[in-house]
Amino acid sequence: MKLASLKQGRDGRLVVVSGDLAWCADATHIAPTLQAALDDWENVAPGLELLATDLAHEAIPMMRFHERLAAAPLPRAYQWADGSAYVNHVQLVRQARGAELPESFWTDPLMYQGGSDGFLGPRDPIPLADEAWGCDLEAEIVVVTGDVAQGSDRETALGAIRLVGLVNDVSLRNLIPAELAKGFGFVQSKPASALSPVLVTPDELGDGWRDGKLHRRLDVDINGAPFGRTQAGEDMTFDFGTLIAHLAKTRSLCAGSIIGSGTVSNRDADGGPGRPIADGGRGYSCIAEVRMVETILNGAPSTPFLKRGDTVRIWAEDDRGHSIFGAIEQTVG
Amino acid sequence: MKLASLKQGRDGRLVVVSGDLAWCADATHIAPTLQAALDDWENVAPGLELLATDLAHEAIPMMRFHERLAAAPLPRAYQWADGSAYVNHVQLVRQARGAELPESFWTDPLMYQGGSDGFLGPRDPIPLADEAWGCDLEAEIVVVTGDVAQGSDRETALGAIRLVGLVNDVSLRNLIPAELAKGFGFVQSKPASALSPVLVTPDELGDGWRDGKLHRRLDVDINGAPFGRTQAGEDMTFDFGTLIAHLAKTRSLCAGSIIGSGTVSNRDADGGPGRPIADGGRGYSCIAEVRMVETILNGAPSTPFLKRGDTVRIWAEDDRGHSIFGAIEQTVG
Repeated sequence: MKLASLKQGRDGRLVVVSGDLAWCADATHIAPTLQAALDDWENVAPGLELLATDLAHEAIPMMRFHERLAAAPLPRAYQWADGSAYVNHVQLVRQARGAELPESFWTDPLMYQGGSDGFLGPRDPIPLADEAWGCDLEAEIVVVTGDVAQGSDRETALGAIRLVGLVNDVSLRNLIPAELAKGFGFVQSKPASALSPVLVTPDELGDGWRDGKLHRRLDVDINGAPFGRTQAGEDMTFDFGTLIAHLAKTRSLCAGSIIGSGTVSNRDADGGPGRPIADGGRGYSCIAEVRMVETILNGAPSTPFLKRGDTVRIWAEDDRGHSIFGAIEQTVG
Repeated sequence: MKLASLKQGRDGRLVVVSGDLAWCADATHIAPTLQAALDDWENVAPGLELLATDLAHEAIPMMRFHERLAAAPLPRAYQWADGSAYVNHVQLVRQARGAELPESFWTDPLMYQGGSDGFLGPRDPIPLADEAWGCDLEAEIVVVTGDVAQGSDRETALGAIRLVGLVNDVSLRNLIPAELAKGFGFVQSKPASALSPVLVTPDELGDGWRDGKLHRRLDVDINGAPFGRTQAGEDMTFDFGTLIAHLAKTRSLCAGSIIGSGTVSNRDADGGPGRPIADGGRGYSCIAEVRMVETILNGAPSTPFLKRGDTVRIWAEDDRGHSIFGAIEQTVG
């Protein structure tokens, strides 16, 4: 099933969305908000599934679903923890600045605790106050968990995954080096992220969800031009079960925790850094990565970060070319 | 006024607590939870104030208030961001490991994004799975904000402070070096923190709240012995207005955001590191600090981290020696 939150109040209004994203049905008589549904998932999910079936059969009152009217499915969440599961991306970052990748990075996940108190809706502008901050997108996969007990292993963690979606983890590249040097993670350099209009249950993804990974292409356009066509199921060193278990090693996680994959990143077929789409490659899920490749190849980056008025579009399609989660489409404002 | 959440469900049940912490009155007819009150503070606070006045006059049905029945006032919150405002503490950390303190640390606040999805109640045990992790307390001051717009200055941020309280920011010292080396902040090394039984409005603190700082002594006992008697109003390089404005530089903050001061830490009267209470000093708000002082003076630390069965007590008193926020009292379990 597919779930979304229409804009209303602080937490939105829960709707069930049809598979083709054309229609939705009010679900507030079952749970007023997505967080409320996640808080009592075992009892609530069957009712939502039934509603989704009725919606598919056009057996109930339904409304057109407009992605532009959707809030983030969780407009505010109790947790947002973002991994860096595509170690290829991390290796490129290091290579571009001449640093070695520690061997432990292949076995010990990188993860940061992000701000979760405000997620942007999928069509909300990116509220950038200063272009000099170096605004970048990061297209990623996210999962939303149920409750996870402290010390849960990977298998248990996989079983706690309730929903899957996409995120644009907006990053202010020129603020990152100073914050990383302080060692305390990201505070100012990671402003509010945007979530996809729709989150879906893993079963909705069929064969596209296996081994704790989303096996779909992740599409990114910048200003209407293809920028990324990476495969999210490839080069993901740490699957979502491993990421969740990493976070839960010393504490339990509350239902509604959002866990991110980190920027999706593929190596080139020859094992080197990925090439731009124009050169026959799969492109990138963030501007920083193409700038790193440019630095490695040419000694300096040439692709600029986002400027006011630039538009970013992030989506994924099923086998028939239909949008799975709807599109994140944001203009820098 | 003083507010608390009695244990019930995921978010507790809002009560107004008498000034002496002996009595409380149900407030759920005004707002079911503290988060709900913070979401609509302008409309809700006057009703809560009226209830507090009635409670003080014993004009309404009241119940005994037992700190042991209190949940964290916000059992789960949308944000927990912890500063390191007592730069003295940071300087000692660095000195103990032979590193210089960057000059910028006196002007640019250190802050990390913490996990906010589960705060322990004031009497909940610390769920430590492995003593080898090096369990430590950190006694700190916290404030809870209303909504804060992106780019707010210090004055505006000060005006957004709704409530003041205490936190035990539990830290796993032996997991910290590896996480700091990764640069992404704390994930496994900062498990769930505990909040004081009661949060209070700034006006309740009278002269004890000024310049965006709590001017009260912060008391810490370990296993019944005095460990810390620091002055929270002294040596706080960054006041709460500055900390909130730092966090809000690139994004807005949601009502109910919890902002921490970092470990309260005083210099000795002679300007050197603080001395233990037994030696006539003010002691410490975390074990790591006495270990750093021991390292500087003796070449090695001698005070051990917390073991199973150890008890930590954190509180603050008003001029008459009455507990302001109630006590955090946790046993390592």
